[in-house]
Amino acid sequence: MRDFSQNRSALALNTATLGHNMPGAGAGWSAEQTVDACAQRGIGGIVFWRPEIAGQAAVIGRYARQAGVKVVGLCRSPFLTGPLSLQNPQDIQDDFYKAIDETAALSGDVLTIVVGGVEAGTKGIQESLKHVAERVAAVCDYAAQCGVRLALEPLHPMYGGDRSCLTTTRDAFDLCDQIAASNLGVAIDVYHVWWDTDLPNQLKRAQGRIFGFHLCDWLGHTTDFLLDRGMMGDGVADLRGLRNAVENAGYAGFCEVEIFSAQNWWKRDPNDVLDVMVERFHSVC
Amino acid sequence: MRDFSQNRSALALNTATLGHNMPGAGAGWSAEQTVDACAQRGIGGIVFWRPEIAGQAAVIGRYARQAGVKVVGLCRSPFLTGPLSLQNPQDIQDDFYKAIDETAALSGDVLTIVVGGVEAGTKGIQESLKHVAERVAAVCDYAAQCGVRLALEPLHPMYGGDRSCLTTTRDAFDLCDQIAASNLGVAIDVYHVWWDTDLPNQLKRAQGRIFGFHLCDWLGHTTDFLLDRGMMGDGVADLRGLRNAVENAGYAGFCEVEIFSAQNWWKRDPNDVLDVMVERFHSVC
Repeated sequence: MRDFSQNRSALALNTATLGHNMPGAGAGWSAEQTVDACAQRGIGGIVFWRPEIAGQAAVIGRYARQAGVKVVGLCRSPFLTGPLSLQNPQDIQDDFYKAIDETAALSGDVLTIVVGGVEAGTKGIQESLKHVAERVAAVCDYAAQCGVRLALEPLHPMYGGDRSCLTTTRDAFDLCDQIAASNLGVAIDVYHVWWDTDLPNQLKRAQGRIFGFHLCDWLGHTTDFLLDRGMMGDGVADLRGLRNAVENAGYAGFCEVEIFSAQNWWKRDPNDVLDVMVERFHSVC
Repeated sequence: MRDFSQNRSALALNTATLGHNMPGAGAGWSAEQTVDACAQRGIGGIVFWRPEIAGQAAVIGRYARQAGVKVVGLCRSPFLTGPLSLQNPQDIQDDFYKAIDETAALSGDVLTIVVGGVEAGTKGIQESLKHVAERVAAVCDYAAQCGVRLALEPLHPMYGGDRSCLTTTRDAFDLCDQIAASNLGVAIDVYHVWWDTDLPNQLKRAQGRIFGFHLCDWLGHTTDFLLDRGMMGDGVADLRGLRNAVENAGYAGFCEVEIFSAQNWWKRDPNDVLDVMVERFHSVC
């Protein structure tokens, strides 16, 4: 049997994989139970969602550290633009600060930024990307003071209208170049970028700015925009190639498994999901 | 009132807009009725789907010419790769030849190629793109002898798994460069490319190889992968900017409206759909 002990620490769980972030879905485990389940399997890192740690970030962060599980990060910033945002710029900024505070309280390393969609009354993405740039630039110093790194996550272009006018790694590094804050980088999620032949070129621009790498799989026939992600190996993404590309670009952090799957993985026993996830990470990534 | 007489000829109808290509959906008009409806409104071009003209391509082509409506093209090639293809390479090639014959019989100018998804047993898109290149290269000479131009249409990355491993204008021009046939070009559809900030760069490579420009709109909140396209003006795409970009890159052909909309436009009176389409073309594109 292959010995995975050397690289097992590279695996992290994003709790979305167990449906934790959706009320009524998933395992129903507490944050502490989820930490324990990771520790038992040698899963070395965990990423929480804000509702799971609200009001008890410091306690949960301490619990994870004591269990030997690193809090890799927190999902996520508020939408900064578009129809799903809080609309009022002050409300958006206040919640952005709050998300940074929560990441710091957890002793989390990275807060993921999902930027939001196209601003009302505008066409195309350029105007919205300008608003994103302003709203991210406004919080970088504060995040740095809190010891928090910020990762811009380009989402799949199918979310361009409502969830993320930031759709490519190219645009994400362009934003990083423009804002030029040392604690601002990019999260690469295979679900969002697997189709992009320009990715290898863009990763040459990384220069230490890849702050996260997310795993799942793109199912050959995807049936739902949001909640039909596949387990690694069940889809068509070249996971090994993508992981190599990101690691060759200098990334040495966790591989974070994040699977939104309302009709399949969220319905299974969470212990089984974690077991399959560990096995697949080693066999197909 | 604004005078549209000078540019009205630039508008073409893709019959998908009336639901013609889906059995049981849409107007239920014959090809001839659709031609007449275009002619009455000064819509100067039409694009058919293969099931609509099967066995009577020459007759329908002649009817359209006599009505003063140009047959801009035919939709579409068989899927050349992936799960929705005919699988057997010989069957695929035979049907590809047949689609070329049908385009020629219609006196259509362009056959649109939708390439198909990821080949079974492979990961990522590179291997499938190689198969696409081989299968397109194999028919270019024959199409040229028939007077048919071939337009590779990059589809939105959300179709990458099953319908089109060709997802960007960049990859489409790369394929054109590689195959280097004078009758091979690219179709730009705003639905598929509206999010792509690299598009202006890629259009600089056009050199007369834009063979089609397709209009609809990307709805801010899209609810169905295939059949929820918006009428121009109802979504978030920068249609004016996209049209300018394509025309500044040298394109002088028709603007072809292609709207798959099972829950909205396909349920309306087709006369109203065409009237709105003409009005929107002039007011928002």
